[in-house]
Amino acid sequence: MTKNILDELGSVIKGNDNFLLLTHEKPDGDAIGSLFGLFTVLRENGKKADAYLPEKPPMRYAPFVPEGIITDKAPDLGSYSCIVCLDTATSDRIGIEKSLKEKLLSCPLINIDHHPDNKLFGRQNFIIPDAAATAEIIFVTLQDSTGMRISQTAATFLMMGLLMDTGGFRFDNTGASTLKNASGLMAAGADYSRLINALFFSQPLNFVRMEAELVSRNLRTSFSGRYAWAYLSDEILAEFGVEKRDTESLIDILRQIQGVEIAVILYRKDDGFKISLRSKNKKYSVAKVARALNGGGHELAAGAFIKAGDVSEAEKILLDMIGELLG
Amino acid sequence: MTKNILDELGSVIKGNDNFLLLTHEKPDGDAIGSLFGLFTVLRENGKKADAYLPEKPPMRYAPFVPEGIITDKAPDLGSYSCIVCLDTATSDRIGIEKSLKEKLLSCPLINIDHHPDNKLFGRQNFIIPDAAATAEIIFVTLQDSTGMRISQTAATFLMMGLLMDTGGFRFDNTGASTLKNASGLMAAGADYSRLINALFFSQPLNFVRMEAELVSRNLRTSFSGRYAWAYLSDEILAEFGVEKRDTESLIDILRQIQGVEIAVILYRKDDGFKISLRSKNKKYSVAKVARALNGGGHELAAGAFIKAGDVSEAEKILLDMIGELLG
Repeated sequence: MTKNILDELGSVIKGNDNFLLLTHEKPDGDAIGSLFGLFTVLRENGKKADAYLPEKPPMRYAPFVPEGIITDKAPDLGSYSCIVCLDTATSDRIGIEKSLKEKLLSCPLINIDHHPDNKLFGRQNFIIPDAAATAEIIFVTLQDSTGMRISQTAATFLMMGLLMDTGGFRFDNTGASTLKNASGLMAAGADYSRLINALFFSQPLNFVRMEAELVSRNLRTSFSGRYAWAYLSDEILAEFGVEKRDTESLIDILRQIQGVEIAVILYRKDDGFKISLRSKNKKYSVAKVARALNGGGHELAAGAFIKAGDVSEAEKILLDMIGELLG
Repeated sequence: MTKNILDELGSVIKGNDNFLLLTHEKPDGDAIGSLFGLFTVLRENGKKADAYLPEKPPMRYAPFVPEGIITDKAPDLGSYSCIVCLDTATSDRIGIEKSLKEKLLSCPLINIDHHPDNKLFGRQNFIIPDAAATAEIIFVTLQDSTGMRISQTAATFLMMGLLMDTGGFRFDNTGASTLKNASGLMAAGADYSRLINALFFSQPLNFVRMEAELVSRNLRTSFSGRYAWAYLSDEILAEFGVEKRDTESLIDILRQIQGVEIAVILYRKDDGFKISLRSKNKKYSVAKVARALNGGGHELAAGAFIKAGDVSEAEKILLDMIGELLG
């Protein structure tokens, strides 16, 4: 990470007092961890700060929501000197009411993100693609370029972001500096075992049973086992009482299989199927597949939507595209 | 880790030239990673060194075995100036022919381990319980106290040990220094993504299907879901063509369940059942249960054996003991 950029970001943080923090819709662990972490540090260091989270976060994050997060009423954008948008690649994904988007983009908006395809919609943009998580950018900036105190609570939130965006240090974005910064967060007092238990060892029993059933019933492979996919139907979700927003990690059950290069989960949505794609190998970029289907993402993790009446239709489209990708 | 002890160990390594390396029977990731890692560093730094591994390692480690490891004939103990035993808590668990044990204990034996209950059977004993893995002791010693070069290959082996004994940085023994040392190994060129793919994302399809079946058929819970167990019968192993020695990580499927404090897998063995125990909470030490059953291990991970004709008999014994433990 370039020290200059971090210092500039540090100056922005130090030089303002009245913050509103936002993140992307359907917030994941990094969105939530960055939001809660920066919010906590700002308030604990004597700054005025609000954070807005219009959606209920996935269940595993619920025990972590700090006091003072605004969830129930849209914020008054005009009343802040600095609005920070975290971990959000495009302005249309910002987690705020549609009616406020236009006004938001005319505000003093600071865009902090690690997605390489970030659309630079902020007045100032701090995009650091070699950071594994937005939470990591926040941590290193706060630590090296602001002199602000990072409490145990704040370190725990930032560690949450780093843990979730690296899949618990299992994804390809985990580098020597990622582990060094994780060590720094641990030294700052992050409650690591609470996080690990909450994030990785707290699958509800009904989820584990559903996952087993999905494997037994719906797991399919093709291309000599290099492609694995499963259709997570609304019926199976209902049968086990699992909510769709709590299935973020489900695809790992396919990703972990030996020989699998590409893994896909399909979900029913409106008049088609939402698909979640993972690759284990940069040679096979699932972002390419996703973009061809009007979706997006990274080389190794992407998402898209296929309009289709029947799942077998969507599966066929995917099978052709992935066959071509695997060559 | 105490610098003095590491310096002393470093002197032993620097001061000898003709090494034999051993580890414990039924070698796990740390045993194998430490053995291969130290072996590689010694040879690459101009020392004579042999390493003996009398058993086939679990499948996931097979692609990593370096050239020159002795697997087929018992070593001539008298021909070495220094014998190093890695990651082995008691002399009866050393991975060497029984007939050689007595002679071995009269040799210049160096005992390097992180198990707090190590029986100090060596002529010199370097036991560092706050190390997450024996591989971590080796790495820090080599790096800080020998000046020896650690190649990418050696760093990969040592990272393997650290990864496996921390469950990929998910167990309670993962501390700030663990992550810092992992960062050091990564900086030394450890092939992290190869390791992650081989260790965590290479479950054979038949294993994944067996795991799903085990959950669907044999997963039981008790004490309001605080205790979860499953009996992995020989029949289910045979049905899916899975070998017992490749089921090291199977217990994590139970450990990951929300609310579970204690997880147990039972396997058939001889005239009874081998049991593998995990706890998520130091308040509930499974080592206590294991010791009461003539087994052993750590507070959070232990193993034992119950003599019983029928699995329900063994399950009943466990249920009572764990009920008492959970209070």
